[in-house]
Amino acid sequence: MIDYRSDNTGRAAPEILEALIRANRDTALGYGADDWTASLQRRFSDLFETAVRVFPVATGTAANALSLAAVSPSWGIIYCSEAAHINTSEANAAGFFGGGLKLAPVAGEYGRISAAALCDAVAAIAPGQIHRGQPAAINLTQASDLGTIYSLAELQAIAEIAKSRGLRAHMDGARFANAVARLGCSPAEATWRCGIDIMSFGATKNGGLLCDAIVVFKPELVDGLAVQLRRAGQVWSKMRFASAQLLAYVENGLWLQMARASNAIAAQIAAGLAELPAARLLAPVEANEIFLELPNHVMDALEADGFGFYRRSKTLARFVCRFDATEAEADALVGALRRHLSPASARAAG
Amino acid sequence: MIDYRSDNTGRAAPEILEALIRANRDTALGYGADDWTASLQRRFSDLFETAVRVFPVATGTAANALSLAAVSPSWGIIYCSEAAHINTSEANAAGFFGGGLKLAPVAGEYGRISAAALCDAVAAIAPGQIHRGQPAAINLTQASDLGTIYSLAELQAIAEIAKSRGLRAHMDGARFANAVARLGCSPAEATWRCGIDIMSFGATKNGGLLCDAIVVFKPELVDGLAVQLRRAGQVWSKMRFASAQLLAYVENGLWLQMARASNAIAAQIAAGLAELPAARLLAPVEANEIFLELPNHVMDALEADGFGFYRRSKTLARFVCRFDATEAEADALVGALRRHLSPASARAAG
Amino acid sequence: MIDYRSDNTGRAAPEILEALIRANRDTALGYGADDWTASLQRRFSDLFETAVRVFPVATGTAANALSLAAVSPSWGIIYCSEAAHINTSEANAAGFFGGGLKLAPVAGEYGRISAAALCDAVAAIAPGQIHRGQPAAINLTQASDLGTIYSLAELQAIAEIAKSRGLRAHMDGARFANAVARLGCSPAEATWRCGIDIMSFGATKNGGLLCDAIVVFKPELVDGLAVQLRRAGQVWSKMRFASAQLLAYVENGLWLQMARASNAIAAQIAAGLAELPAARLLAPVEANEIFLELPNHVMDALEADGFGFYRRSKTLARFVCRFDATEAEADALVGALRRHLSPASARAAG
Amino acid sequence: MIDYRSDNTGRAAPEILEALIRANRDTALGYGADDWTASLQRRFSDLFETAVRVFPVATGTAANALSLAAVSPSWGIIYCSEAAHINTSEANAAGFFGGGLKLAPVAGEYGRISAAALCDAVAAIAPGQIHRGQPAAINLTQASDLGTIYSLAELQAIAEIAKSRGLRAHMDGARFANAVARLGCSPAEATWRCGIDIMSFGATKNGGLLCDAIVVFKPELVDGLAVQLRRAGQVWSKMRFASAQLLAYVENGLWLQMARASNAIAAQIAAGLAELPAARLLAPVEANEIFLELPNHVMDALEADGFGFYRRSKTLARFVCRFDATEAEADALVGALRRHLSPASARAAG
Repeated sequence: MIDYRSDNTGRAAPEILEALIRANRDTALGYGADDWTASLQRRFSDLFETAVRVFPVATGTAANALSLAAVSPSWGIIYCSEAAHINTSEANAAGFFGGGLKLAPVAGEYGRISAAALCDAVAAIAPGQIHRGQPAAINLTQASDLGTIYSLAELQAIAEIAKSRGLRAHMDGARFANAVARLGCSPAEATWRCGIDIMSFGATKNGGLLCDAIVVFKPELVDGLAVQLRRAGQVWSKMRFASAQLLAYVENGLWLQMARASNAIAAQIAAGLAELPAARLLAPVEANEIFLELPNHVMDALEADGFGFYRRSKTLARFVCRFDATEAEADALVGALRRHLSPASARAAG
Repeated sequence: MIDYRSDNTGRAAPEILEALIRANRDTALGYGADDWTASLQRRFSDLFETAVRVFPVATGTAANALSLAAVSPSWGIIYCSEAAHINTSEANAAGFFGGGLKLAPVAGEYGRISAAALCDAVAAIAPGQIHRGQPAAINLTQASDLGTIYSLAELQAIAEIAKSRGLRAHMDGARFANAVARLGCSPAEATWRCGIDIMSFGATKNGGLLCDAIVVFKPELVDGLAVQLRRAGQVWSKMRFASAQLLAYVENGLWLQMARASNAIAAQIAAGLAELPAARLLAPVEANEIFLELPNHVMDALEADGFGFYRRSKTLARFVCRFDATEAEADALVGALRRHLSPASARAAG
Repeated sequence: MIDYRSDNTGRAAPEILEALIRANRDTALGYGADDWTASLQRRFSDLFETAVRVFPVATGTAANALSLAAVSPSWGIIYCSEAAHINTSEANAAGFFGGGLKLAPVAGEYGRISAAALCDAVAAIAPGQIHRGQPAAINLTQASDLGTIYSLAELQAIAEIAKSRGLRAHMDGARFANAVARLGCSPAEATWRCGIDIMSFGATKNGGLLCDAIVVFKPELVDGLAVQLRRAGQVWSKMRFASAQLLAYVENGLWLQMARASNAIAAQIAAGLAELPAARLLAPVEANEIFLELPNHVMDALEADGFGFYRRSKTLARFVCRFDATEAEADALVGALRRHLSPASARAAG
Repeated sequence: MIDYRSDNTGRAAPEILEALIRANRDTALGYGADDWTASLQRRFSDLFETAVRVFPVATGTAANALSLAAVSPSWGIIYCSEAAHINTSEANAAGFFGGGLKLAPVAGEYGRISAAALCDAVAAIAPGQIHRGQPAAINLTQASDLGTIYSLAELQAIAEIAKSRGLRAHMDGARFANAVARLGCSPAEATWRCGIDIMSFGATKNGGLLCDAIVVFKPELVDGLAVQLRRAGQVWSKMRFASAQLLAYVENGLWLQMARASNAIAAQIAAGLAELPAARLLAPVEANEIFLELPNHVMDALEADGFGFYRRSKTLARFVCRFDATEAEADALVGALRRHLSPASARAAG
């Protein structure tokens, strides 16, 4: 199979496994009181050019839900895109960890929320009324759940509206590496310099192994979150083996190297699609995901050819590029699509 | 340092890291739809001689709290030992995941609960009254939090009382391997054959790396738990790397081999202590933990000698033996205690 | 002021206050173990022609949220109208009491959900998948939040779909009296005979004083709900004073008499509006609420005339008729609207 | 029956019912935006000699649990007496509304907690550790659950310890009137001047009808609590009928008059018991409750005589005096006890 099903079907970077082996000597204090976890704080503070607190967690869902619970009271409203992972794919983990907080979808283009729509949504809730909950925070997925990227200007505009109403800003960075690679900016510019208060820092989808992280830019959020993570079952007693993964992930720019690789494969496929008049993208290809409207028979044909991908609906296919996908695999997909989308093929199917 | 601080300060078994490396080839479906996780179901069903469902989770706290939430309504009462890990060390994770369920300590000896005390506690709550919650389940820590072991007869007696009142039985098996190694029975005999419905199957403390597991013996608990784990952020998208750890952990009896090793070191130390009249154990040494009442100056002296251990109070020290502790380390500890507890030493300190 | 602001601005029926006074003699056991509460069970079982369990509660929000928590696991999805009170006006109480359950709006006309849209929504969630929660129940507001009524056939069609997928059916009957009065059917026909499992039985909006009730048609829901209500702070120790209210409310058909009165006033206004070409209703007037699209200057003028009503948006006014509203008040409103909506008036405003 | 079962079996003060009737004219805005609720704020601010915020709620359990949830994060520890109502009789409502907060019993005499024991309990939890939750607040029941009273000096000493560790102080004043009547101090002296931050202000047990209240002394707690109450289903739409009850309750000192009456009956009984050598009180009688150790046969005999009371255990009876209990009823009880506890009677029973 040529596997475009997801970036979480992929391998872990060998460097991460090697780091585990290196960390497996001597003994070390548990629950994060070890040298690796201390290093991680320094390393990420360097990376983000400010003092941050990093909490390794098992999954992106844990990172998202616990981050949101940290920035919202239980009666809070979290504004997010209709397509946001927290809204569609995490079994309402945010509502659970947040004690009944509510997600409020906000309109926008290509999986992003728009500053104007956010403005309207917040304005509709009078401060101090008790019947609808109170606006608490925004959630931005970067790269978005449709494979697009917020520009720095967009981030700033949205965060500004949030700040002006006292809302916290959370970034779901499950594919943050892909976003930074695409934007060509620094991690700091892509986050706290734009007003982000806390983020889910993804690794799993981009060559990681068994952990993601929460990165906290606002020190006042740290102490409560630390206890919440403990009782959420997200604090490993052998934490050094999680911290070692994240250290290896960012060492020597490995994370961005892998993200550039997967972005490049997606771009190569997108370039190929641009030459196929029958290929209709749902959204611009800006990271490592391609959402393509395809007739059912074409999806069948691709599967018969040995391609793996997700059918998001009867007419929408998602192709995700992993860090270790190859140019040959990209060529193969474009070639197959060219064949199956050709007028002759359509006639045969009709 | 000679490290007796905890069994979670220790290394992971090299076999587990090797399994990770072997699992890191090709792609595989996410969230547990992979071959390793399928194998894990079969392997554990063999191990427990019945069809079980195994859910890898990041931590023992997650295993405990989510298991208890699965067997109790939010108004339930969970009966446990005062010393139970869920009661003392998990920041009330059970209360959190359980939506406000309540832990009710039950008396017993050496970290265990007694069947008679459980009987009384449950009898004090009339069925159907609404003011105190309703009995829902029991929690047994095996090996107990004071390093002792429930006999199979004790387990059966307790579970029988539980069943007769409609309570579910959960075993916190953070040190289950140590218990099975000590009892010399089969995993089945130590669990569902005694009436256990669901268990936290520990690996981390016994040479594991980054996961424990929930083992479910009652099929009707499976579906709900599966969703709860997802929204609890305990379902890795790259689940195969968790399942591979657990497969390696039980392969060729590795888990029991490691538990026998740590138990043996503890027994060696206990045997040494038996010859020191001044050494007073808090509880019999039946697994890999030693709780020793020690004057403050002796604890100081041990630390000066380079021993690591936890001070549970001003007069209580805990020594935990890891799977890779050595007989020489055991001899060293006994020797140091002999010196510091000798009448001459006590006089000098006095 | 002529008050059309809400039906909860109104007086309580004098009969209910008199019942309180009658109940205030001698002593009686607390927490519902009194004669009034026992009578209430019998009286409502007669009323609904089946053995029901009635729990008086302080508010409709408590009735809704605790009912939904009783029919959904914490990972459940509750299907409701976008306009449903639970979705718009209860600060996500359902999410809170339900431990993080999620409301999923379903399309439909005039504040109702449509059977077809429900069918599609449920079909989109595969049984057993773990990423999106699982369908648990439906919520129907009868009368709806736009003042319309589900026909018995509609109710049956929706409940049938629910049942076929194992969903429970909850009716928010904050204005149930208005619905029964309009349908001219029995309470049984309007509820459990259509497949309703549990309902919020409103009294407050229809001449009640300080309580509504949960009516349970499925016995297996009773025991858990009883404890949940206790811990939710919804079980008065002097319960007899709540039960006495509800007994008086249904005694001699008082509840339907009051509902017929408020429905009749709304119908009188609607008939008047039918003769005003410029009056555009948002929804048919089928109970005691009128949603009228009005230019801003007309709303200003009505307020200047001394009418009280809610502005739901810049162009939408809501008028609610109370059980003690008078025909003269209805005439006054129609008259004022006739004046302000006349072409001459519009020109003047323009 | 001569009813000593509880003070919640009693009647409501007629003044309160009359107030309801007076409030039942005209219309009024819902959800607390009415004149009665505004008056209530002023009236209680006068009563407490400081600006307070009063929230009427349906029950004492709601008052307690929502107050505690307002002063504790979900990972907080609430220190209370083992005998505290929140710990024994509210089905862990505090744990539920508090998102999994934990109650930690603290030793003390006669249903009170002791300052020294509190000091030790808090000292056992290191600030910033993540394994045990973090101290958040204390709960004091005044009068206590064994019918005793904290002196102002005791309150101050306890609150001082609490403040020095950053804990909030909550008073469960289900029988606050009895305490103030006994102490002969002002409500201000008995609460915020001693360091109380928020209280449950009981009315039901002391001649109230259908509501108690939360009184907030710290303004920063108000906004969040207002929303929580709404989603907790504790904000009546016809709030004026709750506020009117509380206004009548304190009007012209009615509340203290009633409390003095029930205290006096209890004192009369206690004085009678002082002359019976065989009568053993569990705790001094300082409010309106009497806890009396009695042989089983005496309890049987009292019931045969027509007395109602609660058997708290096989050898402990509780007698509660209502505001409308009479001196003749007190005499009757003492007389019966004199008979049944006499040596002759004991011989006959033996």
